[in-house]
Amino acid sequence: MGLKSFVEVSPESHFPLENLPFGVFRPKTAAAAGGSCPPPLAARPGVAIGDLVLDLSAVASAGLFDGPVLKNNHQCFLQPSLNMFVEMGRPAWKEARSTIQKLLSADEPRLRDNASLREKSLIPMGEVQMLLPTIIGDYTDFFCSMHHAKNCGTIFRGPENPISPNWFHLPIAYHGRASSIIVSGTDIIRPRGQGHPSGKSPPYFGPSQKLDFELEMAAIVGPGNELGKPVDVNKAADHIFGLVLMNDWSARDIQAWEYVPLGPFLGKSFGTTISPWIVTLEALEPFACDAPKQEPQPLPYLDENNHRNYDIPLEVWVKPAGHEHPSIITRSNFNHLYWTLTQQLAHHTVNGCNLRAGDLLGTGTISGPDPESYGCLLELTWNAQKPLTINGSDRKFLEDGDEVIITACCKVQCYKLQFLAIVCFNSLFFPSK
Amino acid sequence: MGLKSFVEVSPESHFPLENLPFGVFRPKTAAAAGGSCPPPLAARPGVAIGDLVLDLSAVASAGLFDGPVLKNNHQCFLQPSLNMFVEMGRPAWKEARSTIQKLLSADEPRLRDNASLREKSLIPMGEVQMLLPTIIGDYTDFFCSMHHAKNCGTIFRGPENPISPNWFHLPIAYHGRASSIIVSGTDIIRPRGQGHPSGKSPPYFGPSQKLDFELEMAAIVGPGNELGKPVDVNKAADHIFGLVLMNDWSARDIQAWEYVPLGPFLGKSFGTTISPWIVTLEALEPFACDAPKQEPQPLPYLDENNHRNYDIPLEVWVKPAGHEHPSIITRSNFNHLYWTLTQQLAHHTVNGCNLRAGDLLGTGTISGPDPESYGCLLELTWNAQKPLTINGSDRKFLEDGDEVIITACCKVQCYKLQFLAIVCFNSLFFPSK
Ligand SMILES: [Ca+2]
Ligand SMILES: [Ca+2]
Ligand SMILES: [Mg+2]
Ligand SMILES: [Mg+2]
Ligand code: NI
Repeated sequence: MGLKSFVEVSPESHFPLENLPFGVFRPKTAAAAGGSCPPPLAARPGVAIGDLVLDLSAVASAGLFDGPVLKNNHQCFLQPSLNMFVEMGRPAWKEARSTIQKLLSADEPRLRDNASLREKSLIPMGEVQMLLPTIIGDYTDFFCSMHHAKNCGTIFRGPENPISPNWFHLPIAYHGRASSIIVSGTDIIRPRGQGHPSGKSPPYFGPSQKLDFELEMAAIVGPGNELGKPVDVNKAADHIFGLVLMNDWSARDIQAWEYVPLGPFLGKSFGTTISPWIVTLEALEPFACDAPKQEPQPLPYLDENNHRNYDIPLEVWVKPAGHEHPSIITRSNFNHLYWTLTQQLAHHTVNGCNLRAGDLLGTGTISGPDPESYGCLLELTWNAQKPLTINGSDRKFLEDGDEVIITACCKVQCYKLQFLAIVCFNSLFFPSK
Repeated sequence: MGLKSFVEVSPESHFPLENLPFGVFRPKTAAAAGGSCPPPLAARPGVAIGDLVLDLSAVASAGLFDGPVLKNNHQCFLQPSLNMFVEMGRPAWKEARSTIQKLLSADEPRLRDNASLREKSLIPMGEVQMLLPTIIGDYTDFFCSMHHAKNCGTIFRGPENPISPNWFHLPIAYHGRASSIIVSGTDIIRPRGQGHPSGKSPPYFGPSQKLDFELEMAAIVGPGNELGKPVDVNKAADHIFGLVLMNDWSARDIQAWEYVPLGPFLGKSFGTTISPWIVTLEALEPFACDAPKQEPQPLPYLDENNHRNYDIPLEVWVKPAGHEHPSIITRSNFNHLYWTLTQQLAHHTVNGCNLRAGDLLGTGTISGPDPESYGCLLELTWNAQKPLTINGSDRKFLEDGDEVIITACCKVQCYKLQFLAIVCFNSLFFPSK
């Protein structure tokens, strides 16, 4: 049986007491805001519990973060982003989690029996607007699923040597665009751009005709490192606060034409969606599992003592424009990643590159070995050669008005309690003007 | 004859009254800071004049920005970065420049005859520390010199079709790392990383053995654009505040091994140096010149009414470790760029990607047509096949302790007045630990 809160948490909720993901929200009305420190409609940190958001600025203002680390540092919860908090590192994260878990538990009276504080600090999810959880200084996207690398290589370069020889020696990555990262629910506008010319004709120009999603997760960086000072792979976990879901929207026609020799640019930078709630590594700990054995053996700077992934089932659903219900189109799992989060982070810094608190490190598209587990339409439709049928509609790539929903839900069936989840996307493609 | 200031400006100065570049500085001592608004040692905006820095926070606090745009908006000069000012756009830039030019002119008494304000606001360059001029949300690096593209293609892929077919249709670019952008004078630590394996052996790992500079300039973005709203190429100039010099330090061995298929990553992200002073497009206006004719004709969204470059002579000097004097190793010019700044910016946003005030857009390595005008050692030594001799020392790539100095100096020989310049770099390679 799971932990019990005085807040009602339905068995289907993604947000039981064992999860407690962190996000940033803005009350939709002054009445919802209660009487906490920031101005009534200002952005502030919160934690999800059942169908409610716990306003951490209200909890902090009431003096309830009384552990040794946070007692004199609760201003980290009076900020419009989580950057200050995630920068404080694991001791602060552990203390915050255990304080919040205690405050919300069924047998702890301090919040449960204080009607005015409950009123101030617990807000129905419908009355808040979720925002980006951190200010993202830099966003990096890795390429860590072998199945995805192999499929893309086969589609674009043929079945002989689809994976380039460097891939098994280092976690390949590119710098992404930080400005266009948006929170789940924000509409996406179909990008215009150049597509590959056919024969001697000039390149195509117009709205992208090959719009795709990419099923990814991403790490939110906690404490950064100084320029010139790499992070040891065995200490890399201390630099990761938690995970979000990510959809790296991709315009395949733009990408295919532009990416030689410097990599993806406008085919990606029109928008990248992340989920609003950061699930902490601590909450994910029960779902840790062995990562795939690596052959050849990684170089020493990537050879970690604790080579682990997480067992996080991932699904993508598409609700075609005009339809009422979404249908599932792929089932994958975070544990398909060949290079772990800690290897990604250690590699990123081995040249001295400095990470900063709040940075985003995408895993790359997470495809599994089977065609039903591929993480993007490029793979699922084999570059439009095998259209999918979704609710009776054919899809090669996304059409205007399609909704893409990505879910991640870790489950343990103890006493029928489903106890960890990461929320979903819901983004629209609008016609371009 | 040039404009005359009451501040002494030697004929060799890079900072006459016609330049007035903007930067951000910190007084080294409280005494140097005078009595302006920010705390004595805080960062604040300034403008260079002769051997002095004009503290714009002091000028603003004295109420001297009295034009219609800035009168009620002088808080943009009480910030630790120029972001708020550059976001205000051309009307504010023009008014600030003309106000400052007037205040510093020989026949204007308001500052000239106010000893206490002069004392507060004019600080010798030796008493300030220059900082990054803006908070750079995103950094993009283009690839706009045809000579550079051709040389790199020939070196890496051979003389047949060295330039990929997309190059003449769009300004190729990649996202760079914003966190490791540093101001001129900051030491660079030699990065470690993986280099290409030879034959069947595992990849090399260790300090980079092919450290290079890249001679570039970069635009500082003024007002940004909303996500989903491209900038018209004929209005793109209004989004560019000015230019800095840039050195895109590159580890060629790391880059060569990692860059397929997603582009440069750790081969670049260990550090990128920019000059502290932003020379405005307005100051550069007298040096505008026609840009190269483009064939094939660009697509309409890149086909601009005013297709212009600037005539900015560029030089790279190297002072080998242990030597006292630098020697010049290349002479290039900004006007070699095939794609203009405005085409770069319009292309960057055509997919709806949002730029933000303070963003940095590098031009890519600026190589000219002749071997004496190549913009990096990769080209100058033809990938170490033809070492350079600098002060009697052989150089294939950079060695620890080498100093690289990049200069840009626009000259008009009117009445022997040399009247515009952009300052130089001076960065050291330190041994890695
Ligand atoms: Ca991706
Ligand atoms: Ca470059
Ligand atoms: Mg993206
Ligand atoms: Mg660089
Ligand atoms: Ni004031």
